[in-house]
Amino acid sequence: MLKSKDILGLEEMDVGDIELILETAESFKEILRRDIKKVPTLRGKSVVNLFYEPSTRTRSSFELAGKYLSADVINFSKATSSVAKGETLKDTAKTIEMMGVQVVVIRHPVPGAPHMLARYLDAGVVNAGDGAHEHPTQALLDLYTIKEKKGRIRGLKVAIIGDILHSRVARSNIWGLKKMGAEVVVAGPRTLLPPFIEELGVRAYTRVEDAIEGADVVNVLRIQMERQKKGLFPSPREYAIIFGVNAERLKLAKKDVLLMHPGPMNRGIEISSDIADGESSVINEQVTNGVAVRMAILYLLNGGGKFGEKDN
Amino acid sequence: MLKSKDILGLEEMDVGDIELILETAESFKEILRRDIKKVPTLRGKSVVNLFYEPSTRTRSSFELAGKYLSADVINFSKATSSVAKGETLKDTAKTIEMMGVQVVVIRHPVPGAPHMLARYLDAGVVNAGDGAHEHPTQALLDLYTIKEKKGRIRGLKVAIIGDILHSRVARSNIWGLKKMGAEVVVAGPRTLLPPFIEELGVRAYTRVEDAIEGADVVNVLRIQMERQKKGLFPSPREYAIIFGVNAERLKLAKKDVLLMHPGPMNRGIEISSDIADGESSVINEQVTNGVAVRMAILYLLNGGGKFGEKDN
Amino acid sequence: MLKSKDILGLEEMDVGDIELILETAESFKEILRRDIKKVPTLRGKSVVNLFYEPSTRTRSSFELAGKYLSADVINFSKATSSVAKGETLKDTAKTIEMMGVQVVVIRHPVPGAPHMLARYLDAGVVNAGDGAHEHPTQALLDLYTIKEKKGRIRGLKVAIIGDILHSRVARSNIWGLKKMGAEVVVAGPRTLLPPFIEELGVRAYTRVEDAIEGADVVNVLRIQMERQKKGLFPSPREYAIIFGVNAERLKLAKKDVLLMHPGPMNRGIEISSDIADGESSVINEQVTNGVAVRMAILYLLNGGGKFGEKDN
Repeated sequence: MLKSKDILGLEEMDVGDIELILETAESFKEILRRDIKKVPTLRGKSVVNLFYEPSTRTRSSFELAGKYLSADVINFSKATSSVAKGETLKDTAKTIEMMGVQVVVIRHPVPGAPHMLARYLDAGVVNAGDGAHEHPTQALLDLYTIKEKKGRIRGLKVAIIGDILHSRVARSNIWGLKKMGAEVVVAGPRTLLPPFIEELGVRAYTRVEDAIEGADVVNVLRIQMERQKKGLFPSPREYAIIFGVNAERLKLAKKDVLLMHPGPMNRGIEISSDIADGESSVINEQVTNGVAVRMAILYLLNGGGKFGEKDN
Repeated sequence: MLKSKDILGLEEMDVGDIELILETAESFKEILRRDIKKVPTLRGKSVVNLFYEPSTRTRSSFELAGKYLSADVINFSKATSSVAKGETLKDTAKTIEMMGVQVVVIRHPVPGAPHMLARYLDAGVVNAGDGAHEHPTQALLDLYTIKEKKGRIRGLKVAIIGDILHSRVARSNIWGLKKMGAEVVVAGPRTLLPPFIEELGVRAYTRVEDAIEGADVVNVLRIQMERQKKGLFPSPREYAIIFGVNAERLKLAKKDVLLMHPGPMNRGIEISSDIADGESSVINEQVTNGVAVRMAILYLLNGGGKFGEKDN
Repeated sequence: MLKSKDILGLEEMDVGDIELILETAESFKEILRRDIKKVPTLRGKSVVNLFYEPSTRTRSSFELAGKYLSADVINFSKATSSVAKGETLKDTAKTIEMMGVQVVVIRHPVPGAPHMLARYLDAGVVNAGDGAHEHPTQALLDLYTIKEKKGRIRGLKVAIIGDILHSRVARSNIWGLKKMGAEVVVAGPRTLLPPFIEELGVRAYTRVEDAIEGADVVNVLRIQMERQKKGLFPSPREYAIIFGVNAERLKLAKKDVLLMHPGPMNRGIEISSDIADGESSVINEQVTNGVAVRMAILYLLNGGGKFGEKDN
């Protein structure tokens, strides 16, 4: 059983809870390898995706994770609902809970929005991204992928490359990786490095090469084109030249390096196409692992213990 | 069995049909209290939500009601479909029916649109709000909530407060409450009271206090900010002062008054936050009852009789 | 078993595959006639609707087809997803495939987009319309409807009326009908007839009457109002007078003519209301057959052989 009723962020997450999620996800990865991806585990339970920002992969990953477990899943997006009508977020979420929903998955532009809901609702709340704050399920699937491929997390050197300052993926990964004993280094444009990051025990570089050197894992962040317009980083072409991860730079890492990217990728900008599709890349497998990790989370938040063969 | 194949409005609804829906909803409320909210009752049946206006609660309430009964539910909203392509509403709905759908739930800005469809389709049609005309499932869930809490409807004094003129919730509630033997009073700005309302046997006041005095139930309507711009009622702040239901005004009602609101609430405008979350409030429970009532309606429209233990 | 893992267009489709789909659809039409439209055939399989253009009928037809077969179906539309974020179509589709999806149904404005995906994905790809190129499932349901009503396709005269140049429905129908041995004639404004169409063995007319004369089937295309603005054809009123199919013109066809339209209809423009709802019309039945044909396709793409009673 998880210690927390919610999945809000890796900053506050108990190490035991992280380990339980990663272990449980293994059983679900097994199910995803099957021809028939359906277990009756959460039959009669309901999950809502409450998305205040657009999303393809996270929303559908949760939707399929719920459906593979036989839960009922309903979707809200700002575009098609009355969330704009002036009702408070708390009231919208409470309304959904009162309809018999057990888990509320929320993506919201305001940092801390899921935490506020979690205090207010009896339902489990899963943060699917809150502004530039945290994206815990992405970090958990990244941890799972590293552990699956490397057999461990402790002691590995993980380099995170890109816009660290505005990245909820970076933030959640840093908390999670440090808790699990990895060494974390980051690199990106000086304007996009958080000022006090070294206090978290993370070394920060402005030369990508310095971060990648000797890395076991290179996790490339998506750059947000919108921010470029504000002058926070150079043009896409310049970005590619100075900070883009490509075959030449990747050679500085360990020979068996894992290349990761949370997606969606800007090919030719923060990552070159050859390595994105190359042998080191585990980017596609991250997607499958994302479903497995979210199945584990939905299962555990519904009171599940260790998932065994008797359950399916 | 219902006398009608459709749920169009409380104005035309047979009292026996109202009573059958309220009784049937009780069985479904039981199911909603369970840990596993799923019965196979409507397996292999399909329901479509055809929404020409945005909606969070009504759409999802029908969607979950259908799914809890194991029906397949599909959603159309103006945003993501080709309903804007110039096809007539009749042709759109007929197309959906020809795909094997048994119940069409429709929200449409034009009063009478569901009635037109009902004549044209063999499928059951449920009005989920037609302009300022009717919103029968909201009224039925309000009736259910009153009966559940008070044990009866007949003889109770129900005060409806707000923009009566433009409210389909008010209109459906008035028809339903009068049929079930309640005394109905309304209050709101003079410009927002329908001219001939007293002919329906409803007393109308412009002082909120006069309506609430001695009430068993106070049902507060949502004000539509859009209408304020047209000069139909005062600023939100003035509205709150003159017409807002708050703790002081609610004291004029019976001690065991039920405070209701169809949602979404404009807290601090038509209703104060303290009483919305206070002891008299049944606002959250209305939401749960909405699912139970809609389960009952979907069940009955699919030819169900009295729902019994053999069905689940 | 189908020879192809994908349904991309009637141009490349094997005649044996067309016949297998039409035969298989018959079994599913039987299921659609039942009171309980649900078979467990595709339980644990997943289908995604990836729609880059708005759609009511095609999207929901696939959604219901999948659900009637007990598959999990998820929807993406441009409106609510991050498909606009700059990710390539290939990456979006690969991501979805990596989540465990077996069939990707795609509608896309770019001709050939489904073909590109099909080469890249292991999942089955179904073209639900690619620009003005092909709409194979529409043509297959049209073939099915003709065969169901007439007992055969070979030797029948089929007249397709309207904007042939821009119509993916026309293009797919022409390929399919020719392969199945029908005689195809087309009629429409001179500007909307493809220049080399007679090389496909199709006679083209600018007088509607010439095409309809003696036809066994008249298939009326939807005109796209947007194109009229570009001066490609006359005003809607003029179009109706010169090219609209109405009772008088339909009398020129065989007595037992089938009147078809892919929908959504512009009543009073390309088709008159009396004949759309008249005895020759099979327009509503086309919709039901569309679900049956799509069930057959989803079934066959998931490796199904001839569908028999043992499967349900």
